[in-house]
Amino acid sequence: MAESLKKDIDLSQYPHINKGLEGIVAFSTTKSFIDGQEGKLIYAGYTIDTLAENATFEEVCFLLWNDRLPNESELSELKTKLRKERSIPSAVINYLENTSKKAEPMAVLRTAVSMLSDFHEVDTENDKEFYLNKAISITAKIPTIIAAYDRARNNKKIVEPLSDHSTAFNFLYMLNGEEPGDQAEKTMDLCLILHAEHGMNASTFTNRAICSTQSDMYSSVTGAIGALKGPLHGGANQQVMNMLMDIDEQDADPVDYVKGRLKRKEKIMGFGHRVYKTMDPRARILRGMSEKLSRETGHETLYEWSEAILKTMKDEIGIDPNVDFFSATVYYSMGISPDLYTCIFAMSRVSGWTGHYIEQAENNRLVRPRALYTGEKDLDWVPVEER
Amino acid sequence: MAESLKKDIDLSQYPHINKGLEGIVAFSTTKSFIDGQEGKLIYAGYTIDTLAENATFEEVCFLLWNDRLPNESELSELKTKLRKERSIPSAVINYLENTSKKAEPMAVLRTAVSMLSDFHEVDTENDKEFYLNKAISITAKIPTIIAAYDRARNNKKIVEPLSDHSTAFNFLYMLNGEEPGDQAEKTMDLCLILHAEHGMNASTFTNRAICSTQSDMYSSVTGAIGALKGPLHGGANQQVMNMLMDIDEQDADPVDYVKGRLKRKEKIMGFGHRVYKTMDPRARILRGMSEKLSRETGHETLYEWSEAILKTMKDEIGIDPNVDFFSATVYYSMGISPDLYTCIFAMSRVSGWTGHYIEQAENNRLVRPRALYTGEKDLDWVPVEER
Repeated sequence: MAESLKKDIDLSQYPHINKGLEGIVAFSTTKSFIDGQEGKLIYAGYTIDTLAENATFEEVCFLLWNDRLPNESELSELKTKLRKERSIPSAVINYLENTSKKAEPMAVLRTAVSMLSDFHEVDTENDKEFYLNKAISITAKIPTIIAAYDRARNNKKIVEPLSDHSTAFNFLYMLNGEEPGDQAEKTMDLCLILHAEHGMNASTFTNRAICSTQSDMYSSVTGAIGALKGPLHGGANQQVMNMLMDIDEQDADPVDYVKGRLKRKEKIMGFGHRVYKTMDPRARILRGMSEKLSRETGHETLYEWSEAILKTMKDEIGIDPNVDFFSATVYYSMGISPDLYTCIFAMSRVSGWTGHYIEQAENNRLVRPRALYTGEKDLDWVPVEER
Repeated sequence: MAESLKKDIDLSQYPHINKGLEGIVAFSTTKSFIDGQEGKLIYAGYTIDTLAENATFEEVCFLLWNDRLPNESELSELKTKLRKERSIPSAVINYLENTSKKAEPMAVLRTAVSMLSDFHEVDTENDKEFYLNKAISITAKIPTIIAAYDRARNNKKIVEPLSDHSTAFNFLYMLNGEEPGDQAEKTMDLCLILHAEHGMNASTFTNRAICSTQSDMYSSVTGAIGALKGPLHGGANQQVMNMLMDIDEQDADPVDYVKGRLKRKEKIMGFGHRVYKTMDPRARILRGMSEKLSRETGHETLYEWSEAILKTMKDEIGIDPNVDFFSATVYYSMGISPDLYTCIFAMSRVSGWTGHYIEQAENNRLVRPRALYTGEKDLDWVPVEER
């Protein structure tokens, strides 16, 4: 008869369940380094502050794919390739135009990226150039997908991508149907730089696990989008905005609102991080942008509430904001719909995902951990009529 | 200037990179237990031999979702629900009919499952019943998607699902446009039972990592399909068949063929497993089925070659076949196209994935391991024209 596993399992064989794989070093990487104590983030050699001050998103893509910055001709070649790859197949446009207008944008992005693979050559050559061209193609097409679905669901005509300008400029142009100003382009570009890469987070890890089966880059990016979609990961920036809108609707005092949530043991989105023990350096940069932009666009109340919430969280439970907290108000000030925030995160992070894919493919080992079985064993079969 | 990380990294902080997470216990589970030494596999209490002999796939689904076998009324209710959920939205049919006929079936399945979410209510209630209904819906629709795409790409009219019969019967009916015989239904049902669940393999693990961000079940199953697609995971059964067809085309002796590949250090698909150190119990069951079926259908040569390859591998390098090795000849004998084999694997394994999703959601911890950074740090910015 059945024996309870709790009795006969040899626990010495399984000293510890690594829940959430916390502290487990799963890979080596040259893509990014996080010093959680110091609040420091490095992409392939350069601190996030250096990149935020000097780089463009296209340079960051090159950096994450090649572990070095491009020279002039390499950068020019990459920009040309990205621009050429912006158009999406008509079958994908057909899907975006005809699917439910109530679908979640992140779910639609996941489907559309997956669908791209039907129109791309199958993985026959798996050399670095092949991977790089795929990374360029997927990175170039994600902004087109996001903007096209947002217009389609709002019954607006889809705007074709431009054959020039930066990724940031072209995205805002396709989304709004008009050319963005210098400041808007620069802000979007900076947001893309800040979200491009961040160690072994759940989506990057998912992406590497999928790559480890020698599956293709569409599979890994599709899986990563699915992971990023979760509210404990990329979905948090949208939820920060929902919280601010909730405060507005309730006409609540933000300090009382936060204290009330804390008292009811409800989560405050946009705070705390598994890795950072001080303020996330990206939150620091975004905080300055949020202040500036919200004043310029007449949303200073949102910024002031954010600062009040930050101070309350620090005083009450000593937790700092993460990257999601101020990115919400920055995107809101730019007039972007909250349910697109996580899509913009994906539009940036695809550069890191594909960089990690290439790194994993070049030095692969199938990801296959173990699980501790806590169920019963060797039960006898009982026919259905006797159960 | 740049400092090499190799010099200044504190290696004592990172004693070991767990490549492939080998041996790392990531979760506890009641879904399955593998004894790699003894060649034993248990699903939620019952050995695979007990289930292969007695159960139906629908009973195994219930078992993996509820950790116990259903009574008569529960089984009847589950069958009714599964049958009701077989139809797919017209937008998905439209995609299957109009996408590239050269697309990989696993890529199409990944896209179509992702697309299903556009027509399903968004995750607002996350209780067990909500999850179970989603698991039923996805499990019921996957066979319809696979059969519909296979017919569409072959310019055949898509066959609507039946409102009665088993999952196995209905799938073969939709695929071939005619009702299968008892033996074919039974064989397909057994294949579905054998592939339903198998510990913390890469796709199940990917599925749990995606769930851990509190993302939805469509995201996790979509990601898992992407992982299963890889030739180091589910894609292997298709490659076993490609190898047998290669032997046929070359008019080669299978023993010489295998020895030649081994000498050239080329991989022989369908052999070896991270966990089993003896013959995979599923391979043992499939071996018997393969022998019987291949004789009945006039493909005994394939079976004889398989046995010759098995013996050669055992003699030359002492490695046993895994589940993929004999499933290839079983599906081939049933007249199924080799590039659908991994889809059939997914059609079965979705029961395990969704069981693990429910288990993860009920006791969640965000999956976020670490990576060891081996790149440079604090590099100075060099303007592009000076690089």
